[in-house]
Amino acid sequence: MADWTDCLNFGISVAKQASEIVLSAFQQQKEVKLKSSPADLVTETDQRVEKILISAIRTKYPLHRFIGEESVATGECLEWTDSPTWIIDPIDGTVNFVHRFPFVAISIAFTVNKQTEFGIVYSCVEDKLFYAQRGRGAFLNGERLHASRQEDISRCVVVTEIGAERDDLALSTMTSNIFRLLKLPVHGVRALGTAAVDMCQVATGGADAYYHIGMHCWDIAASAIIVQEAGGVVMDTDGSEFDMMSRRVIAASSAEVARRIAQVIQAFPCRRDDEDPHRCVCGGVNGV
Amino acid sequence: MADWTDCLNFGISVAKQASEIVLSAFQQQKEVKLKSSPADLVTETDQRVEKILISAIRTKYPLHRFIGEESVATGECLEWTDSPTWIIDPIDGTVNFVHRFPFVAISIAFTVNKQTEFGIVYSCVEDKLFYAQRGRGAFLNGERLHASRQEDISRCVVVTEIGAERDDLALSTMTSNIFRLLKLPVHGVRALGTAAVDMCQVATGGADAYYHIGMHCWDIAASAIIVQEAGGVVMDTDGSEFDMMSRRVIAASSAEVARRIAQVIQAFPCRRDDEDPHRCVCGGVNGV
Repeated sequence: MADWTDCLNFGISVAKQASEIVLSAFQQQKEVKLKSSPADLVTETDQRVEKILISAIRTKYPLHRFIGEESVATGECLEWTDSPTWIIDPIDGTVNFVHRFPFVAISIAFTVNKQTEFGIVYSCVEDKLFYAQRGRGAFLNGERLHASRQEDISRCVVVTEIGAERDDLALSTMTSNIFRLLKLPVHGVRALGTAAVDMCQVATGGADAYYHIGMHCWDIAASAIIVQEAGGVVMDTDGSEFDMMSRRVIAASSAEVARRIAQVIQAFPCRRDDEDPHRCVCGGVNGV
Repeated sequence: MADWTDCLNFGISVAKQASEIVLSAFQQQKEVKLKSSPADLVTETDQRVEKILISAIRTKYPLHRFIGEESVATGECLEWTDSPTWIIDPIDGTVNFVHRFPFVAISIAFTVNKQTEFGIVYSCVEDKLFYAQRGRGAFLNGERLHASRQEDISRCVVVTEIGAERDDLALSTMTSNIFRLLKLPVHGVRALGTAAVDMCQVATGGADAYYHIGMHCWDIAASAIIVQEAGGVVMDTDGSEFDMMSRRVIAASSAEVARRIAQVIQAFPCRRDDEDPHRCVCGGVNGV
């Protein structure tokens, strides 16, 4: 079995370097552009940080491939192959970043044969470095993480996000999901504004579950393995096996809690991240 | 005009001392009791920290009065008079505390003639000390705070909480409110699980608004003056003047944003915090 520890360590070092740019820009006024909706924002810093990360990694590993949020948004194909692939979100929580709401993360996952070998989530403002390597556990600033193992949904804190969708079907589905969960009841619902950091709360045991519909692979690829390596589970919101490209995820303290959430919540239609990758050359369909 | 700076400084020192108990208990397993609903929790630490705070303040200021969450929950009258009064929440975010979700605060406000003279919110795990004194600005760890001054609701990050209510009317009102805000649209909705810390995000400019229906005076008394002293506004959710005892609040970057939120959201009936204070002797009605 190949050992990807050198790649993990390199990923951590470039994430830490890139965080300096994020933190320095965090305090400034930003020029904001819209992507798919009035709540889907991008800044020059997102694009710059992604270029810096990819350039640094490509120099060291010239044969590796990349899936990056901002590259896909500007028209690059999202093609996930068996080759070693870095899946990158330069700033998870761009709305937070624009507003200076203090949770933004650099998220980096690394897959080989479509299996995640490691994940890195660096919550820059909090200075919290989450990471996990397959079979070797999950860590926060060097301390081993353990999911809560909670099995009783009525004792759960659940994290979720509404995301950038603003059409009636998506919004009514998402708010109805929150209503039904609260009625179960659950102890509470939280939202920090970044899928990567939200999901890492499950790895710490501070939250018992996270679910999301409509996010993209780069939002959750790294935190999915962090949750799994902390002893948690990830699955699709329909209760089936986790599918990195389906744009649906439940991460939970136990299979019982994940399945209970899958029973309660409904999804709305989302184009898969890897749907029709050849269309992307004509204008970034997959970035939407 | 009396100067209450000595009281403020004493309040900060006792909050910091009490935070050591909160932080030490944060990592432990807790014995949890229910109050008004399956999501309204209390631990031995909430009660212990409140007793320590009140005892320390009473020793120094024997003539001052107190309104404390846990004292009221155990049957003490909530009677708000013109006397110097300390309004205390020993652990705002008890559900977070129980789960180790990393946002819990000690909240202390001080009123004279029913006017708030200062407020202290100490977010213990984050080590963030927010405070404000009337007419003298708001601060976070010594740095002056400024609300965002945003006037355009469609560019706002809004923070809110569902709280412990679990009846259909309250839950459907709250989730419908979120739906309508998102449709305006707003940039996003966040929830950290503690009203005091949520509301302080408005004072930092990181969020543009916070609203809540069903919280109690001790949850928001301190953060209300912190928001005001940072240049933000507070009002009732019906658009009228802020009423500490009404259990409804909007805190915002500007009057425009606050009024827009007041137009959009609906409230559900809540017993006022100061309703019929004489009933409380027979079993803590006001603690529910």
